[in-house]
Order: sequence, then C-alpha cells, then structure tokens
Amino acid sequence: MNYQRFFSEAIDQLHAERRYRVFADLERIVGAFPRALWRSDEEAREITVWCSNDYLGMGQHESVISAMQDAAGAMGAGAGGTRNISGNNHPLVELEAELADLHGKQAGLVFTSGFISNEASISTIARLLPNCLVLSDELNHASMIEGVRRSGAEKKIFRHNDVEHLESLLKAAGPERAKLIVFESVYSMDGDIAPIEAIADLADKYNAMTYIDEVHAVGMYGARGGGITERDGLAHRIDIIEGTLAKGFGVIGGYITGSTAVIDAVRSYASGFIFTTALPPAIAAAATASIRHLKASSVERDAQQRQAQQTKDKLSAAGLPVMPSQTHIVPLLVGDPELCKQATDRLLEKHGIYIQPINYPTVPRGTERLRITPTPFHDDALIDTLRDALLETWEALGIPFNEADQPQQAKSDRVVSLLVPKSGG
Amino acid sequence: MNYQRFFSEAIDQLHAERRYRVFADLERIVGAFPRALWRSDEEAREITVWCSNDYLGMGQHESVISAMQDAAGAMGAGAGGTRNISGNNHPLVELEAELADLHGKQAGLVFTSGFISNEASISTIARLLPNCLVLSDELNHASMIEGVRRSGAEKKIFRHNDVEHLESLLKAAGPERAKLIVFESVYSMDGDIAPIEAIADLADKYNAMTYIDEVHAVGMYGARGGGITERDGLAHRIDIIEGTLAKGFGVIGGYITGSTAVIDAVRSYASGFIFTTALPPAIAAAATASIRHLKASSVERDAQQRQAQQTKDKLSAAGLPVMPSQTHIVPLLVGDPELCKQATDRLLEKHGIYIQPINYPTVPRGTERLRITPTPFHDDALIDTLRDALLETWEALGIPFNEADQPQQAKSDRVVSLLVPKSGG
Repeated sequence: MNYQRFFSEAIDQLHAERRYRVFADLERIVGAFPRALWRSDEEAREITVWCSNDYLGMGQHESVISAMQDAAGAMGAGAGGTRNISGNNHPLVELEAELADLHGKQAGLVFTSGFISNEASISTIARLLPNCLVLSDELNHASMIEGVRRSGAEKKIFRHNDVEHLESLLKAAGPERAKLIVFESVYSMDGDIAPIEAIADLADKYNAMTYIDEVHAVGMYGARGGGITERDGLAHRIDIIEGTLAKGFGVIGGYITGSTAVIDAVRSYASGFIFTTALPPAIAAAATASIRHLKASSVERDAQQRQAQQTKDKLSAAGLPVMPSQTHIVPLLVGDPELCKQATDRLLEKHGIYIQPINYPTVPRGTERLRITPTPFHDDALIDTLRDALLETWEALGIPFNEADQPQQAKSDRVVSLLVPKSGG
Repeated sequence: MNYQRFFSEAIDQLHAERRYRVFADLERIVGAFPRALWRSDEEAREITVWCSNDYLGMGQHESVISAMQDAAGAMGAGAGGTRNISGNNHPLVELEAELADLHGKQAGLVFTSGFISNEASISTIARLLPNCLVLSDELNHASMIEGVRRSGAEKKIFRHNDVEHLESLLKAAGPERAKLIVFESVYSMDGDIAPIEAIADLADKYNAMTYIDEVHAVGMYGARGGGITERDGLAHRIDIIEGTLAKGFGVIGGYITGSTAVIDAVRSYASGFIFTTALPPAIAAAATASIRHLKASSVERDAQQRQAQQTKDKLSAAGLPVMPSQTHIVPLLVGDPELCKQATDRLLEKHGIYIQPINYPTVPRGTERLRITPTPFHDDALIDTLRDALLETWEALGIPFNEADQPQQAKSDRVVSLLVPKSGG
C-alpha cells in the first residue's frame, strides 16, 4: 500500500472525469458588492460575482458589519468553549430568541453551519423516535441525506415534490408508526418550490412530523423574511423549520426552530451540537442585526425579486436557455460538463464575470448548468453586461440556444448586435 | 404516536438521570478576561470563568480582534458561498498557508469546526482507502468516533495510549492492508499525552498512516505553537495533523494539514467540507493573526504553564484531589454526578466561580470531575481564591479530599483556615 500514490491517483481520476474543482481566490469589497478582487497567480483583477449565496448583500450591510465589530470589541473573537462548557454567549441566546420569533415557534437552536443543523437535527430526531420511518424528497440536500443516513432509521425516498407518491408511502406505513417527512421549501439548483400545504395536509392525515429546510428562502420570502412558510401562512403547520444565517442573512451558521420539547431534545442529544465550540458572539450579533433589519425592511426582498425577474426576462429574450424557476434562482442550461467549465472559464477570463459551473453530482448529467443568483445590487446595467457576455460565450463555444424562444435571426447577426450599445435592456 | 409527549419524556429522562444540561448565559468582557457577566433570570453578575478553552486568552488579544474588525469592515460579515461557489475568500487561502507552515506540511485545509474537520477528514480518508482498517484510541473524541463510523471502514479500538495493544492489532492486519491510526496528542479530560514517537515507529514498521488530533495542544506547545508534535520534533513523522482555531488560537474553526495529495483528496471528496458555507474572511483573518502572534511569542505559553502548575500545586497542597495531568488541564475528582453538579452550582452562586461539571458520558461513571483550565490571565490571587472556594465547597458538600496527600488536620480546622488572609499562596 503506497498511500501517497493512492491519493494522487484519486485526484488524477477527478481530473480525468473533468470533476476536479479549482476554487477561485476572491476578496469581496464592502460597498462595491457584487464586485470582488479575483487573484490568479500573481495577478489580481476586479470581477463581478454572479453566483453568491449572499442573496441580499446583507454580508456588507452597515448594521451587520458594525454589530460584528462592536461585539468583537466588547466580547472578543471567539466563544471560548462549547455551548455547555463556557461558550454559551449572550448574543447567541438573543439570536435563538430572534429566530424562534421569526418563525413563530417556541424555541430556536443555532449550529455552526446549516450542514450541521440538518445533519445533527434530522439524525437526532429520527434516532430518538422509536422505529421511525423517514420520508425524504429525492432532491434533498447532501446535509439532509447525511442526517437521514446517520439516524439509522428506515427511509423511503419520494419523487421530487410528488404528493401522490408521498401519500402512498405514508399510507403504507400506517398512522401508528412514527414518521418524519423531510423536505425543502426552495430547491436551490432548480429554484422550484415544494407543495408545502399539501404535504402538511398529508402529515395531519397520517400523523407524521414535518421538517422543512428553508435555507434558500429565509430572509427573502414572507413579510418579515420568515421564508416560504411565512409567505404562504404555513409556518404553524410545520413542526421544524430549519434555516441558515449564511445566505439571505449574509453571515454564517445554521439553525432549527420548533416546539420547546423537540428543540430541547436535539440540544440535549445531538452529538454534532454538543461537542463543538459555540459560534462567536460577534457572529451571533451580526446575524441578529441582519434578521432584525430584514424583519422590518422589505426593500431588499423586493429589489431582489425585481432583479431576478429582469435577469430571467433579458436572458430569455436573448434566446438563452433559462430553465423554469419560481424563485430568485436563475439556472441556465448548458447540458455538458466540459462546455459548462469552458463557459465559466471564458466568462471569468474574458468578461470578468464569475459564475461557478454546476456539474454532476450536484445536478444530474445532461443538465449541467450555470446557476445565476441576482441580488438587489445586480442593477439593470450589470444584467445587460451579463447577457451580452453570455451571448458571446454561447456563440463562441457553440452552446445550444433556446431555439423555441429565440428570435429567428442568424447567429452572426446576434453576435454583431451585442456590440451595439444597449438602450436600457 | 404523540410526538410532543415523546420528546417531553426524552427530556424528563435526562432530568431523572441528573444529566439535563443548563447552559450558563455568559458575556465575556474584553480586557477583563477571565471575568464575564453571568445572566440568570433578571440578574447579571460578574463571575470568573475557570473552564474556558480559550486557553491562552487569545480571543481577547488586541491583534486578533482588530484583524477581525478590519476584515469585516473591508470584506463583509460572511463569505457568501461554499468554498467552491464564490466563498473561497483570500484570508482563508492565507490561513491555510499559515497552518501548513505551522506544522511543516505541504498543505492545509480549514473547516467550519474542529468537529467537522475530524468527522469529514477521517471518514473521507478511511473511505477512500480500499479495505481500510482504522485503529482508534479508546478515549478518542466524539468527532473522531463519528468520522470512523461514517467511513464504513472496519475499526479496532486500542486501549488508551497502549502501544503494545496497538502493535498486536497492526501485526494481525499485516503490512499490505491499508491502515489508519487515529489518536490525540493531549486528551482533554485527563490532560495526559499520547506516546507519539512509539506510535510513529509502529506506523513505519507496519506501513500505516497516522492521524493525530492536536486540538488541545496547538498554540500551547512547541516553540511556534505547533503542538506536542512540534515540541517533541515529531511533526514530520505524522501524516495528518488536525487542529482547531477555537481553543489556543481563540477564534472558531478546525483544520487538517498534510501532504498535498491527501489534503486535495479530502478537499475534493469530503461532503462535510464541500457542501457548507466557507468561514467568513473576518474569522480567517483573526485566526491568522492569532497563529502569527503565537508563532513569534512564547510569553503566553510560558505563563499558561506556570499558572497551571501553580494551580495544581496549590490545590494539591490544600488536600484537594487533583488528578494526575501532564498538561495545562487540571482535573479535580468528585466521583459522583449529583455532587459534581451541586459543587459547580455552589461555586457559581456562592463564590462567583464558573466551572462546568463533567459527568458521564463525557467521562466514565465514578470519575465525575471538575475540569479546570488555568490561562495566563488566572493570576496567583485568582488561584488562591479558587482554592479557598473549592475547600469551602468540598467541606460543605462532604466531597472526599485526597486523604493521602492532605495535611492531617481536622476538617473544621481547615475551614477556619480559609478565613485567614493568605500570604501569597
């Protein structure tokens, strides 16, 4: 056994499959979001980020940054221990109360990441419940899949957003057996939304618990940023609402909210919660500032929705293959991993536009895509620039256009048209 | 199935077993460490923390806090994405280079926590290696146990620090089989140290990989804070050195260092690394500042060792049952979970001294203890105050003293002596 050679070969295999990932070295610039410095070799260039999950730009919001700085100055850089052993800092206690209020639940519990919040909570709940059956949407995030796996509980996968399929599985399990339905509100790679009310109806009918992941919705939907469950008046019908502090709220960390009993059980039994250092007070204070701002202000939500719609409209009108999405997420079909990588390389190097390629296994083979996330700070001029750069790239690499929608013009015409100054869209 | 009742009963059971944990609500005070505000109900009192893992007080170091504040001001509160999708911020790239240098390794990889760094790294390495056998010290941390479990690899537990037992297991597996030895340098509940050189010799002899957890040693041992492996000149003999940014370095996050090939494999294959938001630039910058400071300064390390020795000496001299420890960790035997909880409640409420009780399952039943962690900021006067408070508490609750060591005086005499002013120790 030659260990070093073995690991080198594991890496070579990723290169051969075109799945080797190179991380772009970025330095975000407060006040210039979504601009960032991109470093490659010795060079540093300013580029525009079009794939950030800082969906509302709250990571650069003045109230969020100053909350972080003030808490660091007053309470220090770290928490100094696990939640149980000296690390339970007061800003974290306040944050959990804020989150419980956001979702109209009795209690909240914060984790160091959304990944851990899903993994630890789902595994703990499903393990505690005797003979629990987990019903899991087939497109659930890796962290939820890990949580189900680690619980050791039996699981049934239901077809994506397929309520009939879910019902048949619930019916087969019977009303007496403990059942946990695990799903997301917004699925992040397609931007579609779960039939939450229908799933809650089924949970009532068959006596199942419900666990929803709202990480791509909190801060962005609902009058106070409580997510799709708030927007649709359904929060009270879901047992556990999970969310993140790292996307709409712009900081880091994950959380669950629910009844006092369930939250206390996860707090008391989840290994991934117990044996880890608490989030620093500065992080907790920044997250609380962000949540409070978005509870009171819909300016960011409205602007995000407008710019997302503008992006969809302008790219579609140009014949670019925008995939259907009900949300702020704008997926653009490429359909080939090599072309997808080439397209993003070209966008970055030639156009200063950073969009990460999304390839298998994150999405099914043949649906490789660019995943574009417009924020309130991607103004109309930036959208125009994006469209033009995409058109140039699509042409240059021969990526298929959306033939059904596109204007019937010669490809060469289209390229030429890009060079003509735009009049606002 | 009544879900709410079920979870309520799960909590009731913890109360019945005296294992229900109440988190102390703390607000640390920069410049006054180890003092903190403790909130209970409506009241807020200043107390002294004696159980923090901010072992060197770096969480309140001026250079660490200002690095955090400056990076937040320049780059914002969050990273804005996963490492692969727009979140790979420049301070994180610098931090990984700093860590590789700290341990004399080719590469470093940062995770959102030490828990995740162990779980994701061990599970990925052991899963990638064909038919891997994991050899794991019986006292390894929960995060390492989870990593081994998730790898799906076969595992053998060797008796704590027992090199002969480890050798018999290695010999039985044979030189051809892939083998990963997983252990810690400093075991945090007893403060003892692994026989690192002997384990490295065995790894060479039987062709095994070695993975060491140095979370309770980095920053604190070695001329540059590289841990016990640096202190003993053994870093080059261990394949993967894992550490934390949350204890000696005073911030949050975990990491591994090793050869380029191994680190790249974990980076590329570990689900718990790939699908989670990157650490914020402000956190990375603070950690880098802390590491750089401790690479250049031994003042904090020396003072910590001195104060830890002072604490051991003074408590032992007073007849308190200090358990043997080779490190900065000072365990004090209580031997009963109920008494352990009562002692810490009394210390907090009567004496303003905060030490968390350590009960089963963190330590074996019958060895329940107080785990005291003196820092450079616990000066001699604080140590005297601690000793006096412990003596009062031991007397009041009837906790056994260390009869072998203690001066042969009547218990009542000892209590009276506490009320006499001390002359420096």
